[in-house]
Amino acid sequence: ESGALAQVRRILNSDLQAADVAHLLESSPPKERKLLWGLIDEENEGDVLQHLGDEIQSWLLNQMSVQEMANAISDLDTDDVADVLQNLPDKVTQEVLTTMDEQDRDRIEAVLSYPEDTAGGLMNTDTITVRPDITIEVVLRYLRRHRSLPDMTDSLLVVNRRDEFIGSLPINKILVSDGDTTVREVMSTDVVSIDPETTDTQVAQLFERHDLISAPVVESHTHKLLGRITIDDVVDVIREEADHSLLSMAGLDEDEDTFAPALKTSRRRAVWLGINLITAFVASGVIGMFQDTLDKVVALAVLMPIVASMGGIAGSQTLTLVIRGQAIGHLDSGNMGWLVNREFIVGLSNGLLWSVIIALATYIWFQDIQISLIIAIAIVINLIIAVLAGALLPLLLKKLGIDPALAGSVILTTVTDVVGFMAFLGLATVFYL
Amino acid sequence: ESGALAQVRRILNSDLQAADVAHLLESSPPKERKLLWGLIDEENEGDVLQHLGDEIQSWLLNQMSVQEMANAISDLDTDDVADVLQNLPDKVTQEVLTTMDEQDRDRIEAVLSYPEDTAGGLMNTDTITVRPDITIEVVLRYLRRHRSLPDMTDSLLVVNRRDEFIGSLPINKILVSDGDTTVREVMSTDVVSIDPETTDTQVAQLFERHDLISAPVVESHTHKLLGRITIDDVVDVIREEADHSLLSMAGLDEDEDTFAPALKTSRRRAVWLGINLITAFVASGVIGMFQDTLDKVVALAVLMPIVASMGGIAGSQTLTLVIRGQAIGHLDSGNMGWLVNREFIVGLSNGLLWSVIIALATYIWFQDIQISLIIAIAIVINLIIAVLAGALLPLLLKKLGIDPALAGSVILTTVTDVVGFMAFLGLATVFYL
Repeated sequence: ESGALAQVRRILNSDLQAADVAHLLESSPPKERKLLWGLIDEENEGDVLQHLGDEIQSWLLNQMSVQEMANAISDLDTDDVADVLQNLPDKVTQEVLTTMDEQDRDRIEAVLSYPEDTAGGLMNTDTITVRPDITIEVVLRYLRRHRSLPDMTDSLLVVNRRDEFIGSLPINKILVSDGDTTVREVMSTDVVSIDPETTDTQVAQLFERHDLISAPVVESHTHKLLGRITIDDVVDVIREEADHSLLSMAGLDEDEDTFAPALKTSRRRAVWLGINLITAFVASGVIGMFQDTLDKVVALAVLMPIVASMGGIAGSQTLTLVIRGQAIGHLDSGNMGWLVNREFIVGLSNGLLWSVIIALATYIWFQDIQISLIIAIAIVINLIIAVLAGALLPLLLKKLGIDPALAGSVILTTVTDVVGFMAFLGLATVFYL
Repeated sequence: ESGALAQVRRILNSDLQAADVAHLLESSPPKERKLLWGLIDEENEGDVLQHLGDEIQSWLLNQMSVQEMANAISDLDTDDVADVLQNLPDKVTQEVLTTMDEQDRDRIEAVLSYPEDTAGGLMNTDTITVRPDITIEVVLRYLRRHRSLPDMTDSLLVVNRRDEFIGSLPINKILVSDGDTTVREVMSTDVVSIDPETTDTQVAQLFERHDLISAPVVESHTHKLLGRITIDDVVDVIREEADHSLLSMAGLDEDEDTFAPALKTSRRRAVWLGINLITAFVASGVIGMFQDTLDKVVALAVLMPIVASMGGIAGSQTLTLVIRGQAIGHLDSGNMGWLVNREFIVGLSNGLLWSVIIALATYIWFQDIQISLIIAIAIVINLIIAVLAGALLPLLLKKLGIDPALAGSVILTTVTDVVGFMAFLGLATVFYL
């Protein structure tokens, strides 16, 4: 082994923290990535794995044997193990589970029994619980018996004899309380507790709003404490959600590996281009209906992209605002009416403003008052339809169970193209023929 | 006062937490928002204010007197006070500062002396510090003298006699350590410490990567401890950054109030529409150069939007991927070459694939082998240029100090429209004239 390689190996395995190594892998093209991964010691693999994006994780896991996987993930938190296992085929997951001891297996199966995007799938089972009737002094002695506390332990969870959650004891309260007060006296009972079926989006909103570091997961009906969710996993959810809106609007996947190989990338992008091609042909079809008109007045062909593009821009502004409003929970049926009304006014006033300017510019260019008038009316129509479509589409799509971030922009473009060309060329046909 | 109002008042001031009240205000149209705000007790105003978006915060602050403001923010953390003050005109900020006692003023001025989007602007000055040579027993006794610890205190900061940061003592270590060990024996020295000039983006990346709850802010040259940054503020940064990419691409501001009044919204959107209108006219200008050709072959007018739109879609996929890669720190000059190369292959292969399909569809529609050939070549050219522009534009813009998320999509559309129309109509002119 050359000196340079040995040096890289040392940097990867002792100088850098696992998260930094993961970042380095994610920032490397495939060949370098493979090379770097090969240099990582087996005992560090699991730690690095859990910090990698889903796509790269799957790719690496696929190259490992069941035993290697089991070793790699043996030291991780239950939720992180569950995350990794959820990226594997069911058969492989079962094989990996059989290599574990019973207690670990039970814990992980508890987390795996909930979908990945729920509180149950996000939770850890490494809670430290105490009873309400013991004193702080006893709690301190009990804690001192631990070699270390689980990461992100900002509070102990208080449960009764039947393992029902009754409150939470912040670590900082322990430190400032007298030794002979009881847990019950200092514990907080107005704690945000989370049902395992809660979606990860809602979990993220709770954490953001209440500035939580961790929160107990409690089965609503039985009040049984199942585990806890920690802020580090919630930060990942927030990042993924935000990425999802941004990337979906361009037809990309939020787990998208920036350095995915060309072939894989081409294949994925081809699908999106194909979907958009259909909408482009629909728009062309509309133009095709007016070939006679275009044949007579070639200036219409020159100006028609302006009508379509102004509609597209106006509509996508509203669409983006509404999709983001949905994502952070600002929009519901109660205030949607106000928003649609506001958008109508915005569409109308901007339509009027810009139609005047466009009409003037058109007149200067072609010296034809009729075309100026036609494009002005078409702009007003398209801008109003565009903002209304932008506001209502996400709502409609959500009701149909379709992701607005993914489908919204394609459908919106189709609407603004069709309405734009139809209004402009249709009006022209009426005027000129 | 009617019973219903009294009930709402009770819900706002005692049943709901400040963050939930803020969420309610953000989800309400202006009139309801004003009404609700009027029902909030003065002592709760500050707490609600700090949870509101910048735009709504400014709007409310503008309606308060200096004394009201000073009262509202008197109980907030230093960084939250600084955030609020940064939304005020300098003159008002000074007035509010003069109402405070000297210690508070000094702390807040320390935070205000750094730009809002740096570690200095994010930090709190409420650190608890200890000396390295005392024992854990003494630390415990010292802590017990506090009524409570600052929020998000997961570690005490260890400083020497000259107030220089030398390490950090996790609370959880205190709990599991023997009383007679010294701080120096159990403190961690490989702590992520942050220079006050670090950008908030970098701070967020550090927190995400290292799963931090809080981190000390330390002046690099002097090693002086200035304060600490906590995860709740970093979560806000992450949310804002993600919002920024998404909203900027549609020409919206990340502080955008979903329920801003119609007039304000119209005015803002008008600017973006105006900028896009210029690019639309540029595209029309290109088409205008080929009026003679269009006059001869009207099918060209029908098909030309397909060439432009396929380029736009392909380019914006790459653009979005690169902007996101820049935001999370995956892209630098070292791996950009690989990415540009990959995108070229993707553009070429998708160009070839879709040009064949489009040529076939065109042939079926117009039964003209020449047009089919022309559109096929134009598609390949435009898709390659589009992905290269999508990959290189953000880099170029960033070097010029222009925000790629804001300017990228406008410039990209101009490029793909111009290249698309130029290639398609230009080739047609060569073939037909």
